[in-house]
Amino acid sequence: MNGFTIIGTGKMGSAIAALAERGGASVQSVAHGEHVDVFTGDVVVLAVPYEALGEVAARFSEQLAGKVVVDITNPVDLAEGRRREIKAGSAAAELTTRLPQSRVLKAFNTSFAATLASGELTADGAGSAPATVLVAGDDADAKSALLDVVEAAGAQGIDVGLLARARELEATGYLQLSLALGEAVPWTGGFTLVR
Amino acid sequence: MNGFTIIGTGKMGSAIAALAERGGASVQSVAHGEHVDVFTGDVVVLAVPYEALGEVAARFSEQLAGKVVVDITNPVDLAEGRRREIKAGSAAAELTTRLPQSRVLKAFNTSFAATLASGELTADGAGSAPATVLVAGDDADAKSALLDVVEAAGAQGIDVGLLARARELEATGYLQLSLALGEAVPWTGGFTLVR
Repeated sequence: MNGFTIIGTGKMGSAIAALAERGGASVQSVAHGEHVDVFTGDVVVLAVPYEALGEVAARFSEQLAGKVVVDITNPVDLAEGRRREIKAGSAAAELTTRLPQSRVLKAFNTSFAATLASGELTADGAGSAPATVLVAGDDADAKSALLDVVEAAGAQGIDVGLLARARELEATGYLQLSLALGEAVPWTGGFTLVR
Repeated sequence: MNGFTIIGTGKMGSAIAALAERGGASVQSVAHGEHVDVFTGDVVVLAVPYEALGEVAARFSEQLAGKVVVDITNPVDLAEGRRREIKAGSAAAELTTRLPQSRVLKAFNTSFAATLASGELTADGAGSAPATVLVAGDDADAKSALLDVVEAAGAQGIDVGLLARARELEATGYLQLSLALGEAVPWTGGFTLVR
């Protein structure tokens, strides 16, 4: 399995680390703000808020060259309670222009942390389904490197197409976020696909 | 139960008619192009392609005044294989400006016809879940009029918030459509929510 480097040790970073370890990958966890000279992972997950992506990309641009870089963000202005308008169409598309030497994927933004940590979507009184991870990207090998670990961890990994689909993933992520904030969906549940 | 008038007798119109009847509603079906003086339903579903919405709204503007009007469209340019850019943000938002005297809802655009007809999401070899209908709109009573019938029909109806969320519903609908066209998801399956 490929190694993972995960930048960010918050709720999402920790959950993705748990999933990657369950999937048999070695994991290097890097606290946001910590300096590390060498990323051991071929897959680097930027588990930081959208607002920090630019700074992280700039600070680690050398270490990220040649890597598969995973953007997990939902660009939401929580203070205003709305999505941020992004000229490039998505946060992931924006990131590709900042990291031209990396292979950028969009993933995990439609999965709540608890589902990645446990591997399941659950709701009180209802059944459960495997945690679902939707992945977009232009490089098939990069997507496989991520999806192999996701599947080995017992989650349902789905290739949703080219990185251009990050625009729709971010919309779906926002929809799910708004449902959870409105208590219509628990933070242990969310979208899955019957297929 | 409220009566339904369904304009359009194609795959989606027929499936929504089947669902509404199962949910205990009386159904008036109107072929796209047919003229009808009086709509018997309080809920009128425009089961026509996005490209026909403007014409249908103009032709029936009198009959639609005071009604709950349901937009089900996914504005996709199939020839070009991409989403249409809509200045208003969504097809549903655009429709509200055409029908200022109607209460517009967005619904059914994230549900494949077969799931509405059967009431279930199914996939070969996998389990099944109830058909899932996501509904957005600004008027709570209008949403209830639709959701009551959806739930009575055995489907999972989910209020996703204000009509502004139609933007995200249309993105999610397109994502699901692209997965089905790419054979990653069957036309009997698709998105559901664990909650």
